[in-house]
Amino acid sequence: MKNLPDGVQDFLPEELRFKHSIENILRKTFESSGYEEIMPPTFEYMENFSNTSGIFFDENNLYRFFDKKGDLLALRPDVTTQVARIASTKYNEYPLKFCYIANVYRYDNPQVGRMREYTQAGIELIGKNHEYSDAECISVAVEALKNIGIKDFKVDIGQAEFFKSLLDDLGLARNEEQVLKELLEQKNQSEIEYFLKNNNITGHNYELIVNLPLFFGDIEIIKKAKDVYKFEKANRTLNYLERVYDILKDFGMDKYITFDLGMVQSIDYYTGLIFRIFVKDLGYAICAGGRYDNLLKNYGKDLPATGFAISVERAMLAVQNQSEKFTKKPKSVAVLCNDSSRKEAYHIALKLRNEGNIAELVIKGNEDYLKKKRFDEIIKVGVQDG
Amino acid sequence: MKNLPDGVQDFLPEELRFKHSIENILRKTFESSGYEEIMPPTFEYMENFSNTSGIFFDENNLYRFFDKKGDLLALRPDVTTQVARIASTKYNEYPLKFCYIANVYRYDNPQVGRMREYTQAGIELIGKNHEYSDAECISVAVEALKNIGIKDFKVDIGQAEFFKSLLDDLGLARNEEQVLKELLEQKNQSEIEYFLKNNNITGHNYELIVNLPLFFGDIEIIKKAKDVYKFEKANRTLNYLERVYDILKDFGMDKYITFDLGMVQSIDYYTGLIFRIFVKDLGYAICAGGRYDNLLKNYGKDLPATGFAISVERAMLAVQNQSEKFTKKPKSVAVLCNDSSRKEAYHIALKLRNEGNIAELVIKGNEDYLKKKRFDEIIKVGVQDG
Repeated sequence: MKNLPDGVQDFLPEELRFKHSIENILRKTFESSGYEEIMPPTFEYMENFSNTSGIFFDENNLYRFFDKKGDLLALRPDVTTQVARIASTKYNEYPLKFCYIANVYRYDNPQVGRMREYTQAGIELIGKNHEYSDAECISVAVEALKNIGIKDFKVDIGQAEFFKSLLDDLGLARNEEQVLKELLEQKNQSEIEYFLKNNNITGHNYELIVNLPLFFGDIEIIKKAKDVYKFEKANRTLNYLERVYDILKDFGMDKYITFDLGMVQSIDYYTGLIFRIFVKDLGYAICAGGRYDNLLKNYGKDLPATGFAISVERAMLAVQNQSEKFTKKPKSVAVLCNDSSRKEAYHIALKLRNEGNIAELVIKGNEDYLKKKRFDEIIKVGVQDG
Repeated sequence: MKNLPDGVQDFLPEELRFKHSIENILRKTFESSGYEEIMPPTFEYMENFSNTSGIFFDENNLYRFFDKKGDLLALRPDVTTQVARIASTKYNEYPLKFCYIANVYRYDNPQVGRMREYTQAGIELIGKNHEYSDAECISVAVEALKNIGIKDFKVDIGQAEFFKSLLDDLGLARNEEQVLKELLEQKNQSEIEYFLKNNNITGHNYELIVNLPLFFGDIEIIKKAKDVYKFEKANRTLNYLERVYDILKDFGMDKYITFDLGMVQSIDYYTGLIFRIFVKDLGYAICAGGRYDNLLKNYGKDLPATGFAISVERAMLAVQNQSEKFTKKPKSVAVLCNDSSRKEAYHIALKLRNEGNIAELVIKGNEDYLKKKRFDEIIKVGVQDG
């Protein structure tokens, strides 16, 4: 017997109780904001995770297998593509608001709080393209994190459309675009310069790209960017960010907001406002999301959409120091009895359970079990001491 | 875009709410009886689902795939084998009581209430071989079904050990044993007779096997069986059933109990008392379980164990006519506002959510959404009628 493969794990009672508490708070936040939970299957046809111009995810990072008919299936790498499929094929009236809490499977290098099987809790708002929708998504994410007790976090907002509007003018091949995105992601200034020179990108275009990582900070940098990126499309996308910010300010959330115009997302379906939430002292984003207005087209409906996913395991890491708060167990009672008192004892145990306690019947002779389990209370029914 | 592969499904909001209600009642029943929930990974090495004498499940019914290292993995076909692995490798003190609610994956023909991906909710009691343990398992299953509102059901109890004690004397090859098990499962009397004659099983042994399906009914048939199956091993296993029955009688559950000495389970790890629960008008077992004293050996500890799994989707079918009871939603409120009243409106929505309602901010101009969603209440903040 081997142990477990890399990237998967067992959740034992205490940790699972903690995880479920977090999930229940997230679920309640989503549902109370009007998002209804759905659950797609764990796997489906691999092509459902791709679009006409290619797959959204690196194929090598999918867990793939054939069914008996010879069709290629894959464990879901994310739930958003599945929600897009459901919204496109099973509904006719929009907007729709869905949420989910589900495991996803990505065969990449395990990261902090992110195994190859991990849990995402997210929402999707489908059929609406408006600054209020993006502001709503961000506000639900913020309330969700506040509700699980995370205080020290910031919401980084970027613009996939803004970045794409810059890319359009560069005339790079798709794989070259990918390289540039990665360099920007790493904010690797010297490599970006080298890349641009190497690709004969000079003059104005060079300046626009090379300065991108500098547009990072509070709302002031958006105003500054508007002076630098003066062309119509760039200005339009930046104005949009300002309107979203104004709404979030009215919601009392401006203190959480920063902007990062050099932000790129690794998943390839984002089209507009994108965001990530970082928690102090946690090196990775706990939440990522944004607008994906072209994804539903892939499943038959041309509808805008926006959403986010919170990594549940990372949320657990972020509140680890408060985990006792989440894992309180009910009172546990042992009802000690023997063969002749078991009838009465069973009814006492049932009553205790119905009143919200944990109650176990323990038959005389199992005193070792009593000791091991450390019950909060022991009730003796028809048995003597000793 | 293709639709979904055979055997998997989407759970949409109403059905998922119903499913979660059932799951929460089952979880509460298990936990209040002292069973702590755990969650193993969705897949692990395929060999973890097998033992030295072969695999517990038909290999062709597993969803199998290779990881990048070339190791063969499989989606879990059940959770019991995983709990056995965990109990063996991660604990040192026994007995242990675990429960789980998890999806399992079996590539066989979809049945009523059982897709290829379906949900099992079960408990495992590990490290104890005693009639009280088996009685406890059955009583938790009975309470669980009662708690979700199922009234008309019966618990069929069989004895894998009793049946094995008969098999031992026949000297059949393993695959022949499998054929006989299937014939008994189908209670196909004439085929059983044909099979026995064909395998030169005659005389006393012939009588013992051919009459097995007749031992089906209330506690009286156990007494009758003891007169027919007089050898020590058979009598010992039958006495055990009587003792379990006596306990269940004290628990007030005798009215649910029937016996079936011809019962066989398709999963190959059972060793003692086995049981299935049938609901009136539902053609399939809603719950199956029993003793599996040799399974943990496979993972390094020689410990007895017993448990069961309830099929959640079948439980949903069994209470379908009462599903409204489970799917009650909180009150939904639309907070209608405009750009200048959104600040106040957001605080009103937050307050409503904290009080247990669903509250959505709706911006003036989205009256079509108001109509579509049929909110229970509309609160206007700073906006006029019309």
